[in-house]
Amino acid sequence: MIKVGIVGGTGYTGVELLRLLAQHPEVQLVAITSRGDAGTAVSSMFPSLRRRLSLQFEDPARANLQDCDVVFFATPNGVAMQQAPALLDAGVRVIDLAADFRIRNVAEWSQWYGMQHSSPEWVADAVYGLPEYDRADIRNARLLANPGCYPTAVQLGFLPLLEAGVVELDHLVADAKSGVSGAGRKAEIPTLFSEAADNFKAYAVPGHRHLPEIRQGLSRMAGSPVGLTFVPHLTPLIRGIHATLYARIKDEADFQAIFDTRYQDEPFVDVLPPGSHPDTRSVRAANICRIAVHRPQEGNVLVVLSVIDNLVKGAAGQAVQNMNIMFGLPETTGLWQLAVFP
Amino acid sequence: MIKVGIVGGTGYTGVELLRLLAQHPEVQLVAITSRGDAGTAVSSMFPSLRRRLSLQFEDPARANLQDCDVVFFATPNGVAMQQAPALLDAGVRVIDLAADFRIRNVAEWSQWYGMQHSSPEWVADAVYGLPEYDRADIRNARLLANPGCYPTAVQLGFLPLLEAGVVELDHLVADAKSGVSGAGRKAEIPTLFSEAADNFKAYAVPGHRHLPEIRQGLSRMAGSPVGLTFVPHLTPLIRGIHATLYARIKDEADFQAIFDTRYQDEPFVDVLPPGSHPDTRSVRAANICRIAVHRPQEGNVLVVLSVIDNLVKGAAGQAVQNMNIMFGLPETTGLWQLAVFP
Amino acid sequence: MIKVGIVGGTGYTGVELLRLLAQHPEVQLVAITSRGDAGTAVSSMFPSLRRRLSLQFEDPARANLQDCDVVFFATPNGVAMQQAPALLDAGVRVIDLAADFRIRNVAEWSQWYGMQHSSPEWVADAVYGLPEYDRADIRNARLLANPGCYPTAVQLGFLPLLEAGVVELDHLVADAKSGVSGAGRKAEIPTLFSEAADNFKAYAVPGHRHLPEIRQGLSRMAGSPVGLTFVPHLTPLIRGIHATLYARIKDEADFQAIFDTRYQDEPFVDVLPPGSHPDTRSVRAANICRIAVHRPQEGNVLVVLSVIDNLVKGAAGQAVQNMNIMFGLPETTGLWQLAVFP
Amino acid sequence: MIKVGIVGGTGYTGVELLRLLAQHPEVQLVAITSRGDAGTAVSSMFPSLRRRLSLQFEDPARANLQDCDVVFFATPNGVAMQQAPALLDAGVRVIDLAADFRIRNVAEWSQWYGMQHSSPEWVADAVYGLPEYDRADIRNARLLANPGCYPTAVQLGFLPLLEAGVVELDHLVADAKSGVSGAGRKAEIPTLFSEAADNFKAYAVPGHRHLPEIRQGLSRMAGSPVGLTFVPHLTPLIRGIHATLYARIKDEADFQAIFDTRYQDEPFVDVLPPGSHPDTRSVRAANICRIAVHRPQEGNVLVVLSVIDNLVKGAAGQAVQNMNIMFGLPETTGLWQLAVFP
Repeated sequence: MIKVGIVGGTGYTGVELLRLLAQHPEVQLVAITSRGDAGTAVSSMFPSLRRRLSLQFEDPARANLQDCDVVFFATPNGVAMQQAPALLDAGVRVIDLAADFRIRNVAEWSQWYGMQHSSPEWVADAVYGLPEYDRADIRNARLLANPGCYPTAVQLGFLPLLEAGVVELDHLVADAKSGVSGAGRKAEIPTLFSEAADNFKAYAVPGHRHLPEIRQGLSRMAGSPVGLTFVPHLTPLIRGIHATLYARIKDEADFQAIFDTRYQDEPFVDVLPPGSHPDTRSVRAANICRIAVHRPQEGNVLVVLSVIDNLVKGAAGQAVQNMNIMFGLPETTGLWQLAVFP
Repeated sequence: MIKVGIVGGTGYTGVELLRLLAQHPEVQLVAITSRGDAGTAVSSMFPSLRRRLSLQFEDPARANLQDCDVVFFATPNGVAMQQAPALLDAGVRVIDLAADFRIRNVAEWSQWYGMQHSSPEWVADAVYGLPEYDRADIRNARLLANPGCYPTAVQLGFLPLLEAGVVELDHLVADAKSGVSGAGRKAEIPTLFSEAADNFKAYAVPGHRHLPEIRQGLSRMAGSPVGLTFVPHLTPLIRGIHATLYARIKDEADFQAIFDTRYQDEPFVDVLPPGSHPDTRSVRAANICRIAVHRPQEGNVLVVLSVIDNLVKGAAGQAVQNMNIMFGLPETTGLWQLAVFP
Repeated sequence: MIKVGIVGGTGYTGVELLRLLAQHPEVQLVAITSRGDAGTAVSSMFPSLRRRLSLQFEDPARANLQDCDVVFFATPNGVAMQQAPALLDAGVRVIDLAADFRIRNVAEWSQWYGMQHSSPEWVADAVYGLPEYDRADIRNARLLANPGCYPTAVQLGFLPLLEAGVVELDHLVADAKSGVSGAGRKAEIPTLFSEAADNFKAYAVPGHRHLPEIRQGLSRMAGSPVGLTFVPHLTPLIRGIHATLYARIKDEADFQAIFDTRYQDEPFVDVLPPGSHPDTRSVRAANICRIAVHRPQEGNVLVVLSVIDNLVKGAAGQAVQNMNIMFGLPETTGLWQLAVFP
Repeated sequence: MIKVGIVGGTGYTGVELLRLLAQHPEVQLVAITSRGDAGTAVSSMFPSLRRRLSLQFEDPARANLQDCDVVFFATPNGVAMQQAPALLDAGVRVIDLAADFRIRNVAEWSQWYGMQHSSPEWVADAVYGLPEYDRADIRNARLLANPGCYPTAVQLGFLPLLEAGVVELDHLVADAKSGVSGAGRKAEIPTLFSEAADNFKAYAVPGHRHLPEIRQGLSRMAGSPVGLTFVPHLTPLIRGIHATLYARIKDEADFQAIFDTRYQDEPFVDVLPPGSHPDTRSVRAANICRIAVHRPQEGNVLVVLSVIDNLVKGAAGQAVQNMNIMFGLPETTGLWQLAVFP
């Protein structure tokens, strides 16, 4: 059994980790911390876990995380970079679900995240954890940077085309739509039900923090810098990301076959047949990305549709998938739940 | 492995059965029928099942259901009463998720369901399957009548009070709210998104088909006829039933203790601490009923709040629970998934 | 033109007042205050008002409210009782949309609202403003206490039965469901989209602040104290209240006729034909209450269904209706918009 | 008073026309037809209109539409082309809210709409009714082709850039999201609440019927053919379209100024300040298009955000706006309602 700790378990990513890990056959949850809710039973905050999880939130200062095999950080940006190094030095492996270790260029990171990086030395050591691209490196990772939700959907959608070199790199467009849980469990007016329900809007068009992460990821897949326009939208659904991707064709090819081949052995990427339109509910609560590729009107533009559950394949599920790889477990262990439909 | 067949798998109850049975460790799904969709891969209709279920819908006339150990009917009312007897005669056990065998008074059934009963002789033989009340009978059931969704929530909420004899029986009120999936997967205008979203309404106030089923159930728990007013409402959520139950106190008692004691050994009924308000999402996609009991302003009325997922504890999950009991499996087998939150 | 001021215009009640008053042909909006947003253009906070309203929020201390004919308080409880008296003394009429002057028993008010009342002398002078019951008094009101949202729906639903004396008074039940906007525009976790969407729950079952207001209202209609159980629920819709009311029949009567007769001249109460189920969207954004009365199964219980838009007939619309009465305008002036469907 | 008839009033476009026309001060509604619902009171089908509209649906064959000044067709595609000519010949002006007369190339129309055109001679005579571009022609139109919902949002968003000639024409992208009411009031499974709620999906990516209409419109604005990729998405909101438009910059310019200047005198197009993100609720139930223009990261791509209510500026409201122009009324007559927020 892998001894697991969670730092920051009161957000949506944290409670989704709890849901998945509580059902994981090879995991023993030993500690979960929350500064503000120490002493509270986890299941009294999240009744969905009642009678299945007896842990209490512990004060971060007092939790014995150093005895864990792996610690997940489900914290706001800027926390893991401060607390993870001590654990790493003690031999505990760390999976950070925030952005602290995703961007290799520390200066760029600081600019987008508005703070100095407290552990730049660990950035180089961190492994970016998109299993479909980084599996080999993940196995030996000590510090794993779990990808963001938008970056997962967008990178998995563009990856086969970029590796195959069949699209123009200077004008990629990623029009992405996210459910509201992507904004986290924070008391803020814009994500109130009365604000976000029956409403649709773009946000952060001038520049969203996931832009540099996506651009970094696509550029390494393409082998050269890409030009990307990324527009995120807030969508009145709880879970789900739908990325609609546009790329101009550079070289003719069997684009469907490129996707089919690239992902044929991937347990958590599902390429749909030609003509399909994946919907977000087909991945609701499941660790899977479903993808369809279109060439509308037989023109010179490819349209890729890529959907994930932002809390699962876009966060907690992918983190568990990475943990499975890091600890040599079959990659699907504890992640085999079917999507909830309807 | 239990060999399982499903008749009528294209509705919400059917696909939920598929989700649960595909993940059940002791079940082998051998056939699923649909008159209109024979030959179609199940996963092409329900992409959430892709890569996990390779069955095709079969024509009911040609499916080899007689080799099954148990057949679930997830069909409209009136189908099981016609098709189940042949299977029963062949030794196949049957679980009907529709209403055909729930009402012991066949004349009353005919009046409410607007058709003659084609197999009245089987009604007496059928076992009503509310495990928390009928467990002993379920074990040996050949033909199991799976309770309706509203009846499950309402009966589990009133049961401890009726058994204890502490409330007036002549004026029970069940104000129940259901998610839209309870109306089934039928192309009808009133359940269109543009009709049911951002909207709330009562329906069938003059008389809903679940009224006789609930009244029958409450009366046997109480040992005498009850007076019940039952008002269902259509609520803009996909899954979930919230029953708000009102009963006048007859005898003083520790009402919380009555619930705690009655359900303490039940795996799928969770009594919340005093002062709680269960929400439907705390049971979303899980086979559990959560209950709280209140005595507002220390007055003479008890208010019981009872929530279930109408497709799980209110339909497919309870059917699988009944199957587990019928086949001597641990009752929680394959039903241990945590609710999906948020 | 009536010169109108609004104190506290940044909540949902405030912005709904703005929507209605900006379209009111006899109103000149002269000032709107907000402590935190002074200097901000109203339409930059609420883009729905762009190009139609050029006001800025003003600091309450500096706004010249004393020149108004009437000032609406769309503030949290406890503000109007402190600020209204100075305006009243200056001859400005006041309409309070909060609860400060609704409860005639000041001690009871203090108990439910958790604060001392700073202007108990004004409570006696205040007129409760349910036009369908209080019209005569409203005409001369200096200080008007605008009813709460739940109290409006529940009182209008029970009123004809209580006046007619045909139901038992000791066991009334009001099971009420409200859209999330009823909780106000406050940054709080329980009303986040990801918490309130696709979810349904009761709340405040032990005792909600509207209980004493409703009980006071029903008791004066009945002419004697009533026994009331009131259970509010949070419903995943933005606007709308659906009250489902239960009363035992005391005397036989033509209950439909009682409603038809009582409300036949009311512009803003619509009694539906027998067998109807009003839905909340039929009153969305309109100042109207729609009501249906049922006697299920010809039994001894009446069920009344009463729907309003909590922000219109349950708040801002009723406040404007009261203003119209107070200033001798036709009652429907500026309130004649049709409900928005779908 | 303009005497108005409506053919086909039982869909969402029809009932929205009723809402707007019933409140229009210069309109007398004289007839509304429905084949299936002749004899039914309009307000019994649409209770939101109760006590404000006393019309009954009439059989199309018997309605006296020839006495109208103008007849709106709110019918499925293919109806107006058959029934409008007789009215036109009788001197009645016609506004078709369907697609029959929108595409000037009849062969192309037939291909996309899957039927022969029965009145190709009227196509040339029809005026396309985007007031912001076609105002002069609309004044004298006998037969007006009211634009589609997506085409309105997309054309208004691209118009200033195309007229100014500052963007590349060969690679325009329109990623559009529509509320479910855009699919009409038809009993179909994909638009059931349980299918469309909490879900997001693209559809018709290979080719949507609005593609040729948009392409025709953009090409005439640009003065030469455009290359357009158009991807519509089904979004879990009732009303609203959000078009996210992408264009490569050809010539440097003050893009904000281009929009500000182009629309400064338009009553129903609102250009937001730099940095804005219009949301669909800011136009809910109002006849207005709100637009923002962005240049992310100061790159070579412009992003235009354009929102409308698909039933108002995208259908019925624009039709009334066109009627106002056709009959010499102030363009805003009867269309001045503020958006409903929240």
